[in-house]
Amino acid sequence: MKKFRLVLLFLTVALTHVLAQENNGLIRFEELQNPRYRDNILIPDVNGFKVLKCDFHMHTVFSDGRVWPSVRLQEAWNEGVDAISITDHIEGHPHSKEVVPDNNLPHELTISEAQKNNVILIKGAEITRLTPPGHFNALFTGDLSDYITDRSTNEKDWEAVSKASDQGAFIFWNHPGWKLNIEGSYEWIEFVDKLYKNKMLHGIEVFNGFGFHMKALDWCIDKGLTVMGSSDSHGLVSETYDTEQNYIHRTMTLVFAKDRSETSIREALEAGRTVAWASKYLAGKEEHLQNLFKACVELAPVHYSEVTKNGISQNYYEITNRSDLYFELELKEGKANKNIVLYPRSSQIISAESGQDSLIYEVATAYVRSDQHLTVKMELN
Amino acid sequence: MKKFRLVLLFLTVALTHVLAQENNGLIRFEELQNPRYRDNILIPDVNGFKVLKCDFHMHTVFSDGRVWPSVRLQEAWNEGVDAISITDHIEGHPHSKEVVPDNNLPHELTISEAQKNNVILIKGAEITRLTPPGHFNALFTGDLSDYITDRSTNEKDWEAVSKASDQGAFIFWNHPGWKLNIEGSYEWIEFVDKLYKNKMLHGIEVFNGFGFHMKALDWCIDKGLTVMGSSDSHGLVSETYDTEQNYIHRTMTLVFAKDRSETSIREALEAGRTVAWASKYLAGKEEHLQNLFKACVELAPVHYSEVTKNGISQNYYEITNRSDLYFELELKEGKANKNIVLYPRSSQIISAESGQDSLIYEVATAYVRSDQHLTVKMELN
Amino acid sequence: MKKFRLVLLFLTVALTHVLAQENNGLIRFEELQNPRYRDNILIPDVNGFKVLKCDFHMHTVFSDGRVWPSVRLQEAWNEGVDAISITDHIEGHPHSKEVVPDNNLPHELTISEAQKNNVILIKGAEITRLTPPGHFNALFTGDLSDYITDRSTNEKDWEAVSKASDQGAFIFWNHPGWKLNIEGSYEWIEFVDKLYKNKMLHGIEVFNGFGFHMKALDWCIDKGLTVMGSSDSHGLVSETYDTEQNYIHRTMTLVFAKDRSETSIREALEAGRTVAWASKYLAGKEEHLQNLFKACVELAPVHYSEVTKNGISQNYYEITNRSDLYFELELKEGKANKNIVLYPRSSQIISAESGQDSLIYEVATAYVRSDQHLTVKMELN
Amino acid sequence: MKKFRLVLLFLTVALTHVLAQENNGLIRFEELQNPRYRDNILIPDVNGFKVLKCDFHMHTVFSDGRVWPSVRLQEAWNEGVDAISITDHIEGHPHSKEVVPDNNLPHELTISEAQKNNVILIKGAEITRLTPPGHFNALFTGDLSDYITDRSTNEKDWEAVSKASDQGAFIFWNHPGWKLNIEGSYEWIEFVDKLYKNKMLHGIEVFNGFGFHMKALDWCIDKGLTVMGSSDSHGLVSETYDTEQNYIHRTMTLVFAKDRSETSIREALEAGRTVAWASKYLAGKEEHLQNLFKACVELAPVHYSEVTKNGISQNYYEITNRSDLYFELELKEGKANKNIVLYPRSSQIISAESGQDSLIYEVATAYVRSDQHLTVKMELN
Repeated sequence: MKKFRLVLLFLTVALTHVLAQENNGLIRFEELQNPRYRDNILIPDVNGFKVLKCDFHMHTVFSDGRVWPSVRLQEAWNEGVDAISITDHIEGHPHSKEVVPDNNLPHELTISEAQKNNVILIKGAEITRLTPPGHFNALFTGDLSDYITDRSTNEKDWEAVSKASDQGAFIFWNHPGWKLNIEGSYEWIEFVDKLYKNKMLHGIEVFNGFGFHMKALDWCIDKGLTVMGSSDSHGLVSETYDTEQNYIHRTMTLVFAKDRSETSIREALEAGRTVAWASKYLAGKEEHLQNLFKACVELAPVHYSEVTKNGISQNYYEITNRSDLYFELELKEGKANKNIVLYPRSSQIISAESGQDSLIYEVATAYVRSDQHLTVKMELN
Repeated sequence: MKKFRLVLLFLTVALTHVLAQENNGLIRFEELQNPRYRDNILIPDVNGFKVLKCDFHMHTVFSDGRVWPSVRLQEAWNEGVDAISITDHIEGHPHSKEVVPDNNLPHELTISEAQKNNVILIKGAEITRLTPPGHFNALFTGDLSDYITDRSTNEKDWEAVSKASDQGAFIFWNHPGWKLNIEGSYEWIEFVDKLYKNKMLHGIEVFNGFGFHMKALDWCIDKGLTVMGSSDSHGLVSETYDTEQNYIHRTMTLVFAKDRSETSIREALEAGRTVAWASKYLAGKEEHLQNLFKACVELAPVHYSEVTKNGISQNYYEITNRSDLYFELELKEGKANKNIVLYPRSSQIISAESGQDSLIYEVATAYVRSDQHLTVKMELN
Repeated sequence: MKKFRLVLLFLTVALTHVLAQENNGLIRFEELQNPRYRDNILIPDVNGFKVLKCDFHMHTVFSDGRVWPSVRLQEAWNEGVDAISITDHIEGHPHSKEVVPDNNLPHELTISEAQKNNVILIKGAEITRLTPPGHFNALFTGDLSDYITDRSTNEKDWEAVSKASDQGAFIFWNHPGWKLNIEGSYEWIEFVDKLYKNKMLHGIEVFNGFGFHMKALDWCIDKGLTVMGSSDSHGLVSETYDTEQNYIHRTMTLVFAKDRSETSIREALEAGRTVAWASKYLAGKEEHLQNLFKACVELAPVHYSEVTKNGISQNYYEITNRSDLYFELELKEGKANKNIVLYPRSSQIISAESGQDSLIYEVATAYVRSDQHLTVKMELN
Repeated sequence: MKKFRLVLLFLTVALTHVLAQENNGLIRFEELQNPRYRDNILIPDVNGFKVLKCDFHMHTVFSDGRVWPSVRLQEAWNEGVDAISITDHIEGHPHSKEVVPDNNLPHELTISEAQKNNVILIKGAEITRLTPPGHFNALFTGDLSDYITDRSTNEKDWEAVSKASDQGAFIFWNHPGWKLNIEGSYEWIEFVDKLYKNKMLHGIEVFNGFGFHMKALDWCIDKGLTVMGSSDSHGLVSETYDTEQNYIHRTMTLVFAKDRSETSIREALEAGRTVAWASKYLAGKEEHLQNLFKACVELAPVHYSEVTKNGISQNYYEITNRSDLYFELELKEGKANKNIVLYPRSSQIISAESGQDSLIYEVATAYVRSDQHLTVKMELN
């Protein structure tokens, strides 16, 4: 099998010598170093919109997180995240003896490094009320220094969210089902309804980390709120997610934006043009999921036909996933492959009986309601 | 860090139960199975040409390989290779006691499966003369049954290559430097020159497996022959190449073709529109490497500027590699990052002193001659 | 973070220069090559027995497999498998037009290479009767040239197995549940019972590839037959199993042998000292699983204690899996961690209320019957 | 190849249903989560000593690091590091506006969590003088609150190190070659010599991160100082080291200790029983490297012999690396394999001409002096 019988030069030794000569008693083992680059997550444009990968919920040592704000920036850069918001808790500073409890700092300390690295950093905070009503994230905020930390009454809760609202913030309800055993905690309670009716609530987290808050999806669909997904990272993203698997990323919001800018992100969030993404899973409004699927998945024309032993004429097609998303399909109508798994940047060969115009598949990994998957029609050519 | 305290359901157990219920005493551990999909190698079109990933040199049990021909097809499908040719040795059948020494069989046994899977299978063979002159691959051949196996004389060598030539084959010289210690083996000898002058030689392998035959590159450039790269696989691709590294693929020829068809591959090979690719390394004509680089690498306009402590104004740019290729750049002219490594599907931030119109980099991993790298000019906006 | 600001020497370039100097126009990209070594699967000795990793069921081009016999040897060597048997089908030679249908050849062609590489190669064959009764593997066979290929009658079935039995072979029933929809195919039928009563059946495959034949486990336990696990590979192991996951291996039989020799393997198989292993799953007789678990898993004495907010005194322990096996534990008795996952070569910290002498866990991934997991008692010190 | 044709149940869907039933509108995608376990680094005992994996140099947000101290603990736990010391800079607190500049805190905040997780946490600090003399690490320190931060004079330098010395600390010189372009910075200067003569200097960092300070190795050997290796982590270990490669770990000191305790670590450090380890590279005193190699690498007796075509009798041996270390060997005396690469937990087959009693290899990846590799003699049986 191996034709070449040249003297094998050991890499290590060759390298060591080269480096040692140059460096006067100091050599560096560069080959052990983790290569530094910004990964590009591949998602094609959807109907002329850029699909920005955004994570608007994470923490640092300035509340109960375990990293300096610059780590959040670097993680985002490495992973190919377009925009983040550091949303430390207004009301919770467990390290207040060691770290100044100033919620403006995480943003201030990081903004110029973010600009240099071309990552969009949006100012935000987590308004952390007792449950119910629970936690709310505010994005595009102003000065956070006089936000409310008193959590003693419902009036204070209202005042707390109002602070953000008065600054014109985009506000979403975080992980509504996070405390299942507290009665009323995972319900559309009056407080939330009042926020909603006063246009002080704009979205809900449907995916938070590994949690899928199914009721939240229905609320978003029924009430026209924006579907959100976030990592809510406290520790390191890479220690939390099994990112060595090529289809696993932190949980994010895919934002369909006119361009890659803070202004366009805001416009898209307000227009509700988002899909929540938790690696293998997607959740969102039917229209956006449908468009996203069409942008990512392509069924080529028939490339081969044969007549099987039973006399059935069978056509073969190549179906390609041009994105870093992941889709599992189940056949609903037609005679073709019962199941198709579309891994990131890959294709499959499927076969279908001839004489059919189209096939109907359900995308088992994409939710348009808590009890309903995305259904896609695929034209056969 | 972990807010949710729900009962953890063990995946294994949950799954086992679900499956066991359904299957009446038989369960399957699907999660251990290697997922099956065709990987898509990402290389953008170059000046309107598709960049097809081709490997025209490999063996099976029908000569001295160790796999059935269908394995070659499956490997190609898995790895996202567009076109292959199974080129078993005409003159060497070490398994002739166990396997019928019929060189038409590898193609015949595989062609319909290839069509079904949308992989282009080109009929070929390796004409395996003693060294010198060595080995030649013939593509687009006809019936191989009366090819010459007698290797006793130079006349027989000529007759052997003529067989392929008479069938109108595309012929390239394999791994010319493979036996360095045989005098005259790695030279432009008369036999080869005669082939060349009779238009019976159309290309040379510059990359064969892990070997870079540097003189072959110069010959291709100087004489207008097509630059070829091949795996020359005898065992399994995945056992030979460290494919767990995301930038490592088998060695191939990138063919710039009008469309994805056998006809267009032939046209491109004859026109010399190829680049040899050995994972991190590229070799080819300057024009094609230049165009390939431009199609893959994009330098965005300046996104940030700052004045450094020394009073120098510094601009920041994002440089993106939109392909699965790999490039290492070294600065030749201008004031900017000395070195840039562009990993597959990734980007880097670079900075350059303001007031410059462009930068000149050498691509240290791309060869346009044995002693010359590709040089690229990058405009600054 | 990076203190050293030396000139970065690019690895690629440094290497290229070193190699090019030496090799006169030919350089080799060694860094792309898949490193060659024999992986050591770690399983400690069990009660003085070596735990040999064995796979006694696989195919090559000499029946319906897709690789040359030497590939089976190399796979075994790479993966750290101690012993294999190439068991091509006696009755099925789909490639008989291209490959000599001689079942002695796979062993003969491979034996000296096996000895050189220190892999134990046991002569065998698959007696491939119609279902029912189905397929039987024979190990330690003699000459296979006059084995029965006629499958027309039940008498011929009997004669076929008798051939192996007359040669003193160790015979096991393969994948009994493989054709669920054929009536009587997954039952303890008379034919099998007669083999059993005539001591012509010595084991049954409980794990075959990804399939767990649950009834087979009960039969083995109830009738004193040897529990077998095999890969039944036709294609490549690495394409079938997701071996990039560090806990996934081909399906095997763990044989508790007096030493690493063919003789001791035979003795252990006849004594029934085996456990079937399918990466995350184990199946076998309670005694052997119990001993295997004890050899692999160690619970250290308490290393830390604390009194919790509720006034409960809590002890902390380190539990270590010293093997490449995988165990999931569920608490059955005691107050401690409800679930423990023991990944290969790793440990976990668990805590238990003080005042307990021991804990009872069920090993959810280890089966001692189709409906019963291994139960282990862990003493607390 | 695939015999079983049962209905494929999609993992995702099966799982989703199971989980959704249980969880009342909230499901968790457990399969995306990074598994949590403590990796066990395998190094056999050396002459009755435990080989502890230790890293005594790292930073947190309390000086110029980017993580909370608890992250350092968790990293160590995950990676299987036995003992660490958090050694924030006494003299450098870039975050002093945001974080209390109290060097006692990193240890205090982490010690009980360390004990719970069975990781040995040793109190320490980095005394960070201007270069020369540069930086010194002090281990087993007392209260750090009145350590010297004034760096204006040489007297203050002396006073600073004396503080640690007075507390009975173990003191080592960090990365002596880190500023090559400052004259006198990488020399055995008078200040250091005076420390040494006053027994206030006990070791030197030979490996710091990816840097190999070659002169430091010779100083250690010649003057009887302890050879140290450390990560000097400021960011995350996993972002700095390419730990997805199975042979890459953070840089550490291997300490040959009587047992796994702080007391024994101290005793071993003072006795100089250490080896510095940078993934593929080792550096230390000849005696300790020799013993370590013998404990890790085993050459089995001959298992096969053959006479080659040239009439030479050739013996085959299996050589096994039972550790997670990595060794590259080059033949110096004898007739056998020129080069052997011993990957972690793996073996190789080598062959040697018969009639030899032993072979001499140089371990190209192990340094006993700046210009000398470890030489090992391997007896042939």
